[in-house]
Amino acid sequence: MCELLGMSANIPTDICFSFSGLIQRGGKTGPHKDGWGITFYEGKGCRIFRDPNPSYDSPIAHFVRTYPIKSQTVISHIRQANSGAIALENTHPFIREWQGKHWTFAHNGQLKGFKSIPTGHYIPVGTTDSEHAFCGLLHSLNEKYRRKPANWPAVFRFIAQYAETIRKKGVFNILLSDGEYLFASCSTNLYFLTRKAPFGKAVLLDEDLEVDFQKETTSNDVVTIIATQPLTRNEPWEKVQPNQSILFLHGERIF
Amino acid sequence: MCELLGMSANIPTDICFSFSGLIQRGGKTGPHKDGWGITFYEGKGCRIFRDPNPSYDSPIAHFVRTYPIKSQTVISHIRQANSGAIALENTHPFIREWQGKHWTFAHNGQLKGFKSIPTGHYIPVGTTDSEHAFCGLLHSLNEKYRRKPANWPAVFRFIAQYAETIRKKGVFNILLSDGEYLFASCSTNLYFLTRKAPFGKAVLLDEDLEVDFQKETTSNDVVTIIATQPLTRNEPWEKVQPNQSILFLHGERIF
Repeated sequence: MCELLGMSANIPTDICFSFSGLIQRGGKTGPHKDGWGITFYEGKGCRIFRDPNPSYDSPIAHFVRTYPIKSQTVISHIRQANSGAIALENTHPFIREWQGKHWTFAHNGQLKGFKSIPTGHYIPVGTTDSEHAFCGLLHSLNEKYRRKPANWPAVFRFIAQYAETIRKKGVFNILLSDGEYLFASCSTNLYFLTRKAPFGKAVLLDEDLEVDFQKETTSNDVVTIIATQPLTRNEPWEKVQPNQSILFLHGERIF
Repeated sequence: MCELLGMSANIPTDICFSFSGLIQRGGKTGPHKDGWGITFYEGKGCRIFRDPNPSYDSPIAHFVRTYPIKSQTVISHIRQANSGAIALENTHPFIREWQGKHWTFAHNGQLKGFKSIPTGHYIPVGTTDSEHAFCGLLHSLNEKYRRKPANWPAVFRFIAQYAETIRKKGVFNILLSDGEYLFASCSTNLYFLTRKAPFGKAVLLDEDLEVDFQKETTSNDVVTIIATQPLTRNEPWEKVQPNQSILFLHGERIF
């Protein structure tokens, strides 16, 4: 299995604190040593860092952890390989363009019989169940929407229905973003937490690190974090229910 | 205008030396201060680093310059914006999947009337002439090849013909790769150099830096570098002719 981390915020925010906790699970406090990746959106563009090496001792992960890239939407993943060898092309998150937007996808879980999912002209580069399912999702979106949609929450409701059909093949905890919206769909484990004023202190579960968000934020900031397991010990993480999908825009929940 | 750098090698090779020279032109010895990017292929996967800030003082460029990522195929670009604002989504290289491969594209030059180029379902995310032309190229490939081609050099000859048609709209010096092949097509300025045994010393033009490849290589290594301007002062760079396209595989020239 793997671990997921997502962020949706109403102002560009760095994710160094949460990412510091996550990468400890990449071979140190957790067994997810088969690669890691992170996408930061900045406007319509995005930066992607990916490495098939364990995150906890990756020079690139160390760079990302210490260089505060500010973003409103982030998706990160650390991998414990099951479907597909340890290789850069099998390292999440996966990114493809659809309707003039870069879409980022990361998956926790395992799917059986995934090769029967039609992918149209979205052809997987690697051999994971995850990338195949993502290509299938883009193909189904392309079949459903021939032109650029006007109502994006409706598109994400369609994606939630698609996730339900894929879930019949196994565990399908996913994070997905078009750079503006952050979507999550849950099979087994997903938790979220929205930080807003009054801010307090947070203490990581996986490392001896504390941050006082009161000192790091303004009173208007709204920042939601989604992860497969809570990352801090003293904050009220809310569990997403099995088969439930949730959507955030600029840190605020849409559904 | 912009500057391009590409590498094709028969063994995984780092590009730190050439990249060190290139990034000096990103705001220090050259005016290309509007962003930079680099793609490293590792097998079918690739790493992409992009930054809309000047390369010569970019912390990410410094990291890439000092962390020796070994790759057989690399494409890099430093930007002086003309078409499209300074923004991450307008920063080269551009990457899209076609036929189960990640294709990387970078462009030097400027095109007039580029919006008339049909792009099918490959929709540009940013506003550059370059990304639009790349989407047009993928669309034309998709129209020409409905199934995965068997003869890849023939595909690149088709791409060379496509480049000729785009060249009617302006200057179109390009680098393109599917991870295996490195293709270049020239309007005005492109030079290449193949290093193989016996290796010697090379001295950068843009920085006081010398490398002795004799110490860095084995006698079987073949490494070709392509750039818009020669990067070293003491090696026999060969000029690509206007309207000429060239193709390399594992450092060796195919056409």
